[in-house]
Amino acid sequence: MPFISVEIGKLTLEQKEALIKAYTEATVEIAKVPPEAVLMFINEHELENIGLGGISLAEKFGKKK
Amino acid sequence: MPFISVEIGKLTLEQKEALIKAYTEATVEIAKVPPEAVLMFINEHELENIGLGGISLAEKFGKKK
Amino acid sequence: MPFISVEIGKLTLEQKEALIKAYTEATVEIAKVPPEAVLMFINEHELENIGLGGISLAEKFGKKK
Amino acid sequence: MPFISVEIGKLTLEQKEALIKAYTEATVEIAKVPPEAVLMFINEHELENIGLGGISLAEKFGKKK
Amino acid sequence: MPFISVEIGKLTLEQKEALIKAYTEATVEIAKVPPEAVLMFINEHELENIGLGGISLAEKFGKKK
Amino acid sequence: MPFISVEIGKLTLEQKEALIKAYTEATVEIAKVPPEAVLMFINEHELENIGLGGISLAEKFGKKK
Repeated sequence: MPFISVEIGKLTLEQKEALIKAYTEATVEIAKVPPEAVLMFINEHELENIGLGGISLAEKFGKKK
Repeated sequence: MPFISVEIGKLTLEQKEALIKAYTEATVEIAKVPPEAVLMFINEHELENIGLGGISLAEKFGKKK
Repeated sequence: MPFISVEIGKLTLEQKEALIKAYTEATVEIAKVPPEAVLMFINEHELENIGLGGISLAEKFGKKK
Repeated sequence: MPFISVEIGKLTLEQKEALIKAYTEATVEIAKVPPEAVLMFINEHELENIGLGGISLAEKFGKKK
Repeated sequence: MPFISVEIGKLTLEQKEALIKAYTEATVEIAKVPPEAVLMFINEHELENIGLGGISLAEKFGKKK
Repeated sequence: MPFISVEIGKLTLEQKEALIKAYTEATVEIAKVPPEAVLMFINEHELENIGLGGISLAEKFGKKK
């Protein structure tokens, strides 16, 4: 039943698999639930769609299109 | 005012329209709100961005790119 | 795998059970997934925490504490 | 620490930057937090993925593909 | 149609009303939508349920129960 | 910038702190971001507000009030 959602920038396939593995293992160990009960969604965002301190991360990191 | 969000894999246009219709009708009938008050977003995800039991659904269904 | 979350006002136990049943049945039929794959969270909110048209629903419905 | 997420249709880069600026300024002033604490994600959706009153916005605005 | 959700600590009624008003006005002006289309939920959290930098805000601000 | 939200049942203070620590460490290591950039919210739910397979978890675990 635990549902985990992550909002983040672009990741590689390997990073996504590693996050899924790590979060699931931690949840199983800490919340005492079976692995198959842990559902997780990774939401990748363009930097221009993420704001921090009032400006977009595209602007903050000089990556505006 | 009810807001419904669905996290799911890829759907056809017909499936999305059917989900919107069915959820809205159920909400109207059960929660006694007018149809125009029911707002819904469908979020479609790549299988590699969905984790269940510690692995991605792309790996689980043998659909890794 | 489908994950459904509902943001709504206060509901009775019967209404919550009816929503869970109705949404799950619709999802199973339309998205062709098994019932046990459908995970759903109902988030109930105080009217003062819901805004529509620039004012809270507590104000809109004359129910401010 | 405040986290803001917006579900909306397609926006221009300028609109996204303006929303990030305006929401952050309002949050800083009202919730008395420093700007760098305000994290925000803008989620842009196709009209066919947004339902209102039981039909998709693509159908409602005559923009079905 | 725009849906805004805010995850934040405890607020006063006045702060919540001010946030609803400010976000809605900014959305109407920037995204060119009518006010009644803007739906917003404010989710207030205990500091022990918010993590930043690997510790809870309750611990960070010395407010552990 | 990564934002993590967890929907789960009731947890102890220790469990919440352990989840925050574990998820943050995994995110830092895998996504190569600094710890202070990782923001996380834990949303605890009553079993009657969680549906799986068409029924609430309160019913499934025989804990209906």
